[in-house]
Amino acid sequence: MTPFGRIVICGAGLIGGSFSLALKAKGLVREVVGIGRTHSSLERAQALGIIDVIATDWATALDGAELVLLAMPVGQMAAVMQAMAPHLGPDTLVTDAGSTKRDVIEAIYTHFKSHLEQIVPAHPIAGAEKSGPEAARADLYVSRKIVLTPLPENRPESVARVREAWAATGGQLHDMSPQEHDRVFGAVSHLPHLLAFALVHEIAERANAEQLFGFAASGFRDFTRIASSHPEMWRDICVANRHALLAELDTYLTELAWIRALLSQGDGDSLEKLFCEARDARDAWLAGKFDS
Amino acid sequence: MTPFGRIVICGAGLIGGSFSLALKAKGLVREVVGIGRTHSSLERAQALGIIDVIATDWATALDGAELVLLAMPVGQMAAVMQAMAPHLGPDTLVTDAGSTKRDVIEAIYTHFKSHLEQIVPAHPIAGAEKSGPEAARADLYVSRKIVLTPLPENRPESVARVREAWAATGGQLHDMSPQEHDRVFGAVSHLPHLLAFALVHEIAERANAEQLFGFAASGFRDFTRIASSHPEMWRDICVANRHALLAELDTYLTELAWIRALLSQGDGDSLEKLFCEARDARDAWLAGKFDS
Repeated sequence: MTPFGRIVICGAGLIGGSFSLALKAKGLVREVVGIGRTHSSLERAQALGIIDVIATDWATALDGAELVLLAMPVGQMAAVMQAMAPHLGPDTLVTDAGSTKRDVIEAIYTHFKSHLEQIVPAHPIAGAEKSGPEAARADLYVSRKIVLTPLPENRPESVARVREAWAATGGQLHDMSPQEHDRVFGAVSHLPHLLAFALVHEIAERANAEQLFGFAASGFRDFTRIASSHPEMWRDICVANRHALLAELDTYLTELAWIRALLSQGDGDSLEKLFCEARDARDAWLAGKFDS
Repeated sequence: MTPFGRIVICGAGLIGGSFSLALKAKGLVREVVGIGRTHSSLERAQALGIIDVIATDWATALDGAELVLLAMPVGQMAAVMQAMAPHLGPDTLVTDAGSTKRDVIEAIYTHFKSHLEQIVPAHPIAGAEKSGPEAARADLYVSRKIVLTPLPENRPESVARVREAWAATGGQLHDMSPQEHDRVFGAVSHLPHLLAFALVHEIAERANAEQLFGFAASGFRDFTRIASSHPEMWRDICVANRHALLAELDTYLTELAWIRALLSQGDGDSLEKLFCEARDARDAWLAGKFDS
């Protein structure tokens, strides 16, 4: 592929930083500009070789830029787009790494009305409970799924070029509609995060929290790993995707109500059947049965 | 410590097998007898050096035995105790590895009435989603917590000797009442298992399960690791501890109802505060703040 000249990363943390490092490792970018709300974070990203220069305003950042990656928590998307829009030329492509897509696309239609052909939304599935530039790595996206939700207004060449950039990180590209994206990740990502935060929070509030944590073991540790995730990022995801997430939560609550009934009846046979089906499904998943 | 002559392991899988391997590795036992309901499993345990001989009846197994470890799923405890009791001499100590304690102790009072001084209940906190003799290892219990719930009727020398055996595995011993044990593990172990089984089961039942599993990533993998646990063992735990577990489930459902309200109101500030508190509590736990 043709290397990029200048690209801009807004939010040079785990997600944006790893995108930059992946392209740099393959010699596919000449210069990476970092921009974001926290100057100290950009300075650390620069010291780590994630970005080459720091921009403090969008006019400077976008000057001659071929591609912009928006890699902030989704709650900041609208404000950043509004700030960018007056300085965005017709030849600069924009993609994002937002964990939700319907709200990001709403913001695109609001703030980038006259640029719809060059904005190609994306979501790399590579979260981690660590965040910040120190967590970024060139191989973060290798073999990870990257979902693209192109807009009907996108120029085919814009989509192809953005696709090339994401593919260069080593990820596997998948197209979805934004609605489908938000429902799928509501179920397999956002809901589990909410459930893990809820359990840790509920235990931490108890009078005997110290004793309870004292006897928590490896099962608890893994179950709650995602409760060490970035609170602001997950606030934004939950609020942005709250309609799909509420539907998922309600489905799960129905499942729990059924399990509660089995428990209170002491119905061991039905519980064992449920546990078997869950274990078998999970083991089939781990064995790659559902890989696309 | 004085080595044991003959010990009996009932259920030579992960838990019983690791106990045997730990004592053998330190030269603290002369002969290990295996007994259990599945002969093929005992044969594999013998081939792996976990047990030395296989007994097919309790009279033979208990002949000259100094210590018996009951390491089956808790649902089998009562039936095994009933079969053992007529052959149990006054000099054979008994301990168990049951994940719940109130029900095991009820079975002890029912079937071992005339042996209460020599039965010392225990629970090593060393579950894993793997089971069977192949999963057993000599170091499974190193630095793991092992809870003892001695009976008021226990002879002090019985407790001291059983304590020695468990301590020899490398675990850290803690005493608790059976009620306290079942409440604590209902909260930090049994409930998370139930929640993980529930989520995987609920997703596996959907028409688009294949798509959902196809996009599930590392967060989902860790959150649901314990849903690959032994279904029968977890059926028994859930049924045995259902009163404490129902109370824990209801507390959790109250937390979810509150979070549901925050979500439907789009109250990002309260969600972020909750996520922060959960993350901080978990990080403090990982940092060892709650170690006893």
